[in-house]
Amino acid sequence: MKIAAILSLAGALSAQNVPFQRILDSQKEPQNWFTYSGNYNGQRHSSLDLIHAGNVKRLKVAWVHHSGTTESHETTPLVVDGVMFLTEGPNVVKSLDTRTGSLLWRYERTIPKDLRLCCGRPNRGVAILNDTVYYGSIDAHLIALDARTGRVKWDVEMADYKTGYSSTVAPLAVKDKIILGAAGGEFGIRGFIDAYDAKTGARAWRFYTIPGPGDPDFGTWEGDSWKVGSAAIWTTGSYDPETNTTIWGTGNPGPDWNGDVRKGDNLYSCAFVAVDVDTGVKRWHYQFTPHDTHDWDATQVPVLIDGRFRGAPRKMVATANRNAFFYVLDRANGKFLTGKPFVKQTWARGLDDSGRPQVLPGTDPTEAGNAVWPSLAGGTNWASPSYSPATNLFYVPAREQGAFYYKGEADYKPGVIFNGGGQRVVPDEQPYGAIRALDPETGNLKWEFRTHTPANVGLLSTKGNLVFTGSTQGDFFALNATTGELLWRFRSNGGMNSNPMTYSVDGKQYVAMAIARALYVFDLME
Amino acid sequence: MKIAAILSLAGALSAQNVPFQRILDSQKEPQNWFTYSGNYNGQRHSSLDLIHAGNVKRLKVAWVHHSGTTESHETTPLVVDGVMFLTEGPNVVKSLDTRTGSLLWRYERTIPKDLRLCCGRPNRGVAILNDTVYYGSIDAHLIALDARTGRVKWDVEMADYKTGYSSTVAPLAVKDKIILGAAGGEFGIRGFIDAYDAKTGARAWRFYTIPGPGDPDFGTWEGDSWKVGSAAIWTTGSYDPETNTTIWGTGNPGPDWNGDVRKGDNLYSCAFVAVDVDTGVKRWHYQFTPHDTHDWDATQVPVLIDGRFRGAPRKMVATANRNAFFYVLDRANGKFLTGKPFVKQTWARGLDDSGRPQVLPGTDPTEAGNAVWPSLAGGTNWASPSYSPATNLFYVPAREQGAFYYKGEADYKPGVIFNGGGQRVVPDEQPYGAIRALDPETGNLKWEFRTHTPANVGLLSTKGNLVFTGSTQGDFFALNATTGELLWRFRSNGGMNSNPMTYSVDGKQYVAMAIARALYVFDLME
Repeated sequence: MKIAAILSLAGALSAQNVPFQRILDSQKEPQNWFTYSGNYNGQRHSSLDLIHAGNVKRLKVAWVHHSGTTESHETTPLVVDGVMFLTEGPNVVKSLDTRTGSLLWRYERTIPKDLRLCCGRPNRGVAILNDTVYYGSIDAHLIALDARTGRVKWDVEMADYKTGYSSTVAPLAVKDKIILGAAGGEFGIRGFIDAYDAKTGARAWRFYTIPGPGDPDFGTWEGDSWKVGSAAIWTTGSYDPETNTTIWGTGNPGPDWNGDVRKGDNLYSCAFVAVDVDTGVKRWHYQFTPHDTHDWDATQVPVLIDGRFRGAPRKMVATANRNAFFYVLDRANGKFLTGKPFVKQTWARGLDDSGRPQVLPGTDPTEAGNAVWPSLAGGTNWASPSYSPATNLFYVPAREQGAFYYKGEADYKPGVIFNGGGQRVVPDEQPYGAIRALDPETGNLKWEFRTHTPANVGLLSTKGNLVFTGSTQGDFFALNATTGELLWRFRSNGGMNSNPMTYSVDGKQYVAMAIARALYVFDLME
Repeated sequence: MKIAAILSLAGALSAQNVPFQRILDSQKEPQNWFTYSGNYNGQRHSSLDLIHAGNVKRLKVAWVHHSGTTESHETTPLVVDGVMFLTEGPNVVKSLDTRTGSLLWRYERTIPKDLRLCCGRPNRGVAILNDTVYYGSIDAHLIALDARTGRVKWDVEMADYKTGYSSTVAPLAVKDKIILGAAGGEFGIRGFIDAYDAKTGARAWRFYTIPGPGDPDFGTWEGDSWKVGSAAIWTTGSYDPETNTTIWGTGNPGPDWNGDVRKGDNLYSCAFVAVDVDTGVKRWHYQFTPHDTHDWDATQVPVLIDGRFRGAPRKMVATANRNAFFYVLDRANGKFLTGKPFVKQTWARGLDDSGRPQVLPGTDPTEAGNAVWPSLAGGTNWASPSYSPATNLFYVPAREQGAFYYKGEADYKPGVIFNGGGQRVVPDEQPYGAIRALDPETGNLKWEFRTHTPANVGLLSTKGNLVFTGSTQGDFFALNATTGELLWRFRSNGGMNSNPMTYSVDGKQYVAMAIARALYVFDLME
């Protein structure tokens, strides 16, 4: 009789420490993924190239970690020194061994049953700083967890969930602060970006995304509409160390489709705001859609690009907006540099020299409804874009779809949904999608890879000349970053509502993606 | 600007027809998997060898099909001509493209909210015959679905779910009949095996697994205990064409742990019964555990082996029983040939010449509880064994674990759980498991592969000299069928409560396994 070997368990991993300087110098550690977008520039680009266009066809599932979540699985994991940190909506944070997917620790928060939510109970991930992991909870608390054990270090309330506040965003750790904002845009909240002391949880500053009485731009909201104007925060901002500003995209003004009750431009909704990290003082803002009535949040991650613009080096911030236009701004001052549609749009004649849209008459929602492109989900939604310094291309998941927008009553009641209308499908339309590669200097299309339905999954580009993303049909796939050629696909037959990331450990590169209710991690067949 | 190719959809599959003769001759079509165990002999062995011990290390996930189920995922898919049929508890049947996992059709049954269930709402799979798929529902109906569309052809009630009947078993299609039984062993049902006309749904016969007044063996139940004695059916039987009998394993007698109220041997509980397919008349029975008081259902699939016994060819049926003994019977008459423990057991001195256990005193559950090996989950449970004609070895997932059994009140009320006791953990025990390879002539152990916890996942052996199974830790793995050596593992970090199967299409072999809430299908990296 022979006794064969028992299945071995993985060895212990060493503890990790992530001071601010390591995140700042993250380009020196491509094996790690320190922030929601990989590093501060929001590019969701990795300089790892062990997996590349020449060998990606050998990519296969290395391990899977099944979650208990029944929510949309929107996490982007962080990876530090072989240890992974991820969230599972509505209320779980986990640490995993990146080599095997086995659980190191698990934190579960008890959450109220009377939450006010428009769109499920997802969570998009954590921040890490020093030896602590930071998690924004669906009931609008910020919680600090010991990175080695998951033990709670502190727990602070950001805002009262009973009036419609929540948090789904991955926080951003900068210097000694943890920065994040509040969701709840459909509930007439007053949006804000907060910074908390990483050690104590004390609030360092709050920047309201809607100015109050006496503030500049207060006049952009008629009457008391500023009090319930939303401009929520639900995707993570970027950080520009040179100007010491953190740049965040803001949500649409509330109520969503009935603008009659909030006349004016409604600053700083549907905008990028650049805020000083130390003080919370606004340095600049740029509003993409003044007085939005189509639910076009500016919630794509701001992508910081050091490149050339009209022949000269320029520090820029680029974005493909839900309103169908691709924009490039000067990130020192928010000045508009260029803008161009990247999907079909029927609401604006174009942009003027300052980038302000020249809105066409008859495109505001009416009681009966009228057809406008793009739909409320936008030309692209919150799924992350990617920029590759290697190809100098900006990649975006694009949505070709319109909607019949209609306007309804808009009576604010605390904690009750406040949207004033909605959308219907355009009859006989065949919506589709594409992964599009844009020249960031001009917004010109370099290539596209079409998908059967509007693209809704985030992107990752790598130095291996690859772009990873997923389709609504359940394929997770890789494209040649230079040509858009399909190089590899994995059929999951499951939904994807997240963004891919990559890391390496023990000299091996992995690609991770939340699919259905699990995290899938891929590596090369040996 | 370049437009890359759009992701292609798979081409249409041709319709399939499965007359009885094809199932009978299934050895001619190893690419298909016609019944729960692959074919009528219950061996869960495939003669496919494109995946073999020499290349299995190149096995990787080909596709995944995520289900919406929140139940234990216990299905074994069937495959016919490139089309897959599977179930997802509690109430869904699906047909998938075997090459991609994409959905061909989906049937969902509306089920009552007041079901009486001991152990979740799983389902283990369907039967196929001609152009129809047969599904036993959790509310104890048998439903015929068009194999091409999922449309309901007919729906018959087997028994009243309100008195505790249910169905979780994959039916068996033989000749022109669909054979299955009723679960509900914890609710004082009277167990039965039914046969239905495949075309009309009319019941052809019923064999009660508990004899009634006037039947032989009626005297093995004291008083009225036969009326509520259980002996449920919840794993699929086998079929022996030479004797035209179908052999099924029966569940334990109820109440489970209090035998005082049902004195006698309690036939045909904890037994194999061989029933004539045309008439439902019993040809023989063999009871492994007379008057069971430890919940040791005989619900392993009966494994038909044409082999040699003490030098002469013999037609046998073998099983590793929950009661810790491995048995070999003559399948023409049910005569005991040999038996031997395959895990630790402390309840019997041994088996006598007829195979009857020589029960040790003091092993019946008491009010205070007493320790007996194996635990109520048994030396093995319902997860399928496998027999390989290539190695002439019988493979079993083994459980090394005891329990403190205690006895409680046993008052029968219709539709209320009726078990009369339970078990507790043995303090300081370190339970473990193993995949064990037994010589079917002697029950001797040839090799074992140990696992950290009691083995609970079904087995598949293949002509490629492989045995596939899974661990409680979430590894799906392959062993060398001759030596037990670990050749390949996939880390799913998810639960497995099912059995692997294999098929081929377009000249490519696949291995399928239900893991967590999804079906995983593996193939070789090209």
